[in-house]
Amino acid sequence: MYTYVHGGDVYTAGGKKNLVDYSANINPLGLPQSVKKAIVKSLGGCVDYPDPFCRRLAAKLASFLAVPQEYIFFSNGAADVLFKLALALCPKKALLLAPTFADYEKALRSVDCEISYYNLQEANNFEPQPDILTQLTPELDMVVICNPNNPTGKLIDKALLQKIIAKCGELNIKILIDECFMDFVAEEKAYSMISLLAANKQLVILKAFTKTYAMPGLRLGYCLTADNALVLRLHEVGQDWNVSTPAQEAGLAALDETEYVKKAKELIAKERRYLTAALNSLGAKTYGSEANYIFFKLQQPQDLKEQLVQTGFLIRSCANYHNLAGFFYRIAVKRHADNVRFIKALKEVQNAFTDGDN
Amino acid sequence: MYTYVHGGDVYTAGGKKNLVDYSANINPLGLPQSVKKAIVKSLGGCVDYPDPFCRRLAAKLASFLAVPQEYIFFSNGAADVLFKLALALCPKKALLLAPTFADYEKALRSVDCEISYYNLQEANNFEPQPDILTQLTPELDMVVICNPNNPTGKLIDKALLQKIIAKCGELNIKILIDECFMDFVAEEKAYSMISLLAANKQLVILKAFTKTYAMPGLRLGYCLTADNALVLRLHEVGQDWNVSTPAQEAGLAALDETEYVKKAKELIAKERRYLTAALNSLGAKTYGSEANYIFFKLQQPQDLKEQLVQTGFLIRSCANYHNLAGFFYRIAVKRHADNVRFIKALKEVQNAFTDGDN
Repeated sequence: MYTYVHGGDVYTAGGKKNLVDYSANINPLGLPQSVKKAIVKSLGGCVDYPDPFCRRLAAKLASFLAVPQEYIFFSNGAADVLFKLALALCPKKALLLAPTFADYEKALRSVDCEISYYNLQEANNFEPQPDILTQLTPELDMVVICNPNNPTGKLIDKALLQKIIAKCGELNIKILIDECFMDFVAEEKAYSMISLLAANKQLVILKAFTKTYAMPGLRLGYCLTADNALVLRLHEVGQDWNVSTPAQEAGLAALDETEYVKKAKELIAKERRYLTAALNSLGAKTYGSEANYIFFKLQQPQDLKEQLVQTGFLIRSCANYHNLAGFFYRIAVKRHADNVRFIKALKEVQNAFTDGDN
Repeated sequence: MYTYVHGGDVYTAGGKKNLVDYSANINPLGLPQSVKKAIVKSLGGCVDYPDPFCRRLAAKLASFLAVPQEYIFFSNGAADVLFKLALALCPKKALLLAPTFADYEKALRSVDCEISYYNLQEANNFEPQPDILTQLTPELDMVVICNPNNPTGKLIDKALLQKIIAKCGELNIKILIDECFMDFVAEEKAYSMISLLAANKQLVILKAFTKTYAMPGLRLGYCLTADNALVLRLHEVGQDWNVSTPAQEAGLAALDETEYVKKAKELIAKERRYLTAALNSLGAKTYGSEANYIFFKLQQPQDLKEQLVQTGFLIRSCANYHNLAGFFYRIAVKRHADNVRFIKALKEVQNAFTDGDN
């Protein structure tokens, strides 16, 4: 039996229904109405195959991001892009952060790639340090940097990341930067490496509509690279109809939702502060997330996730990440009313534990 | 630049808009209303990740097909299943029919599989003959049979197919039977090999919702196999969220549409007779399709496809298939009014050519 390792499985979690999902990191404002309308409007066109090149969407996104249209490869969610990248590149050796999103490793293993890790240290708040440069060696084919990193929410120092990109160029190492959560970072333009694509053919940036526009159920992700041969190869190693017609139309509508994204960013910044302070006051250690989720350590109760499910909240236990010993969790940043209820539930779970302990 | 080789590209064909699409083989009754409603209803759930195991859909389909639920692997359209099968199995040598659907080869080449062909003969109406058995040799890892075959519309003799399956079992060759167009065959239950799955672990059957329920834009396909290790491997070589929430809900609603499928089958049988007779009367050679499309040869005009685009109809030129020398085409079987207009356009194109010729 195949084991699902991610957050967001609201279908089976604890056998409970209608859980408030703090385990998936989705824009708390929900799916914009304009996106819903675009999907409904798209249904008449579903009797045709989808546009294999997502041409209208690619043109609009290219202008939105100020990149050439031929840099863009769309697929069935960013996770699908990862598996296509693995098959297109077939790297023999890759370097990953630890902890980080599990699907880099899963995708690379699907093509028998050997994985090494750069272990993030709690003592450094899980931020990559300059010693990562020493792990960039000529036998490496690929490195993946999630920025901000999932599950930690930490950004990598910009100057260090630029050094990593430069060294990857010198050593002919593909560098994949996953910016799926960058849209929620306060100064995302300062941290995004999109402007470096043209000058760095070895650079690939992964992005998704999923988190920014709260549409994980629709599946729309993409990567960007100036390496035209790689874009061609990505088309070759998969089917022609990667992206459904509703997802293409949803993407087109979503790109107009600039006010919605701005509002979400403000909400997240504010609620991240609220949740962080509340978590700290309950004895949880946090590490300074810059993303729309918070990573924390809490020693007791050890079955925190299960206890919270009983109160109606699903959180992400980080027990199955590499290089995480101890009791680490990740929660999404949601709307204030939800967050207040969540903190209340967490308090109750803690009180029940302390009472039982005495 | 990547080249799209299939039918159904209504987005660019000849630079014309609103073409009547005879190049993709879709149920002419269109997307059922109940499916549209199910999609609209699903939109609220799109803020969650889709169920990675499509559990409700799998349970319903298992009962519908009378197979165990654990035989089923869903993905983003049948074409996506092909690429996952290639990566999961990594065959070194495979045998394909020629001509047949191009994506078997594309998928197999994505894992560097060597391809050999069983060349179908026009003299035999493009039906596989018993000599195909001699091409099943121990060094082969996989064979793909499209039944009815695309683009020919021909079924393989049932007794011969059973011999092929048995020999594949003896020689440990994976046999993939693509039954994506089987739902339109008059006696599909007699020709489908689904009942042989339990006794033949080497057998994999590919199916799609795309053609049967006119939903190519939504992406929902699956394969069936009693080989549990293969199903596990299919999950391992791809992302967890293969099938969008709207597609899962569309599939659930579609399975209730038994009357619609029955009506479509009757319509297709009738209109296939009409189109075949009309094509023959215009000098086209046909080969006895059993599917919802018709394969024909017509020598003149040589630019038939381009000529028809100018009259508003998109057909599939079969010039880019292996083992097809000459002027072969494939058209979908559509509603009567469309078919009458199509035949009229074909006549006009022919007349214009004859006039120009004299």
